[in-house]
Amino acid sequence: MFKFNPIGIIHSPFKSKEDIESKKYADSRGFDSVQGELEIFREYEEGLKDVEGFSHLVVLFSFHKSKGYKLHTMPLLGDILRGVFATRSPNRPNPIGMTVVKVIERNRNRLKVSGVDMIEGTPILDIKPYTSRDQKSPIKLGWLKKRMNS
Amino acid sequence: MFKFNPIGIIHSPFKSKEDIESKKYADSRGFDSVQGELEIFREYEEGLKDVEGFSHLVVLFSFHKSKGYKLHTMPLLGDILRGVFATRSPNRPNPIGMTVVKVIERNRNRLKVSGVDMIEGTPILDIKPYTSRDQKSPIKLGWLKKRMNS
Repeated sequence: MFKFNPIGIIHSPFKSKEDIESKKYADSRGFDSVQGELEIFREYEEGLKDVEGFSHLVVLFSFHKSKGYKLHTMPLLGDILRGVFATRSPNRPNPIGMTVVKVIERNRNRLKVSGVDMIEGTPILDIKPYTSRDQKSPIKLGWLKKRMNS
Repeated sequence: MFKFNPIGIIHSPFKSKEDIESKKYADSRGFDSVQGELEIFREYEEGLKDVEGFSHLVVLFSFHKSKGYKLHTMPLLGDILRGVFATRSPNRPNPIGMTVVKVIERNRNRLKVSGVDMIEGTPILDIKPYTSRDQKSPIKLGWLKKRMNS
């Protein structure tokens, strides 16, 4: 078993899961303009040195409102049960989320970002630079193909 | 505190951290051709339904050989101390790794993939489909800019 403590919290215009589960956001660019803030706890602030040089960051976080999971799940964008690992559902065996955000500015221990699809108060587990190794193209979208306006 | 249990393990040609920390792999495409296998434990096999429709998967895993961290760290590709969150170092407050792999084929609970940069026996925490929301471009690489052949 692995134990992790939050390094910060996310400030978001979305106050609840229901705010986010609106299909208007759920396509490929829907969240791009949604701004929020990554507040890193002061004890980790020094670890943020140099992050502002990157345009995008990978944010790992806890889906802290997740309550259990099923191996077959109904996706927000679908009408057929899918394997949970073929979805980005918050209800998964290890409820860890991953979102790539765009850096707007850093102010000490606070990072203003866009591309936020997490809810207010979401615990942050890690921040990493997004690099060219994370850019994959072309990609195949499986069952999502017809659902995303990509 | 959040507690996570592995859902599987990674089979890799790299047997130790030292095998991986070779600069020949460390540029933007160095690991692309490295093949391995994601072995998902049988109890989670049903959750893999539909994953083979996606060309790429996000793999979250535990840096299980990580021993502590410093907030300023020397990157493999660098010669100046950087904030740990501006690096992909395994030695971080929450030692969780994220790698995007390419799916070659699925055989029940085993996924043959390429793009492996983890070591043999690495515990898998989660698998997610890589979607167009994860494709960011153009990007700025900060201190890494001159280090990656991107």
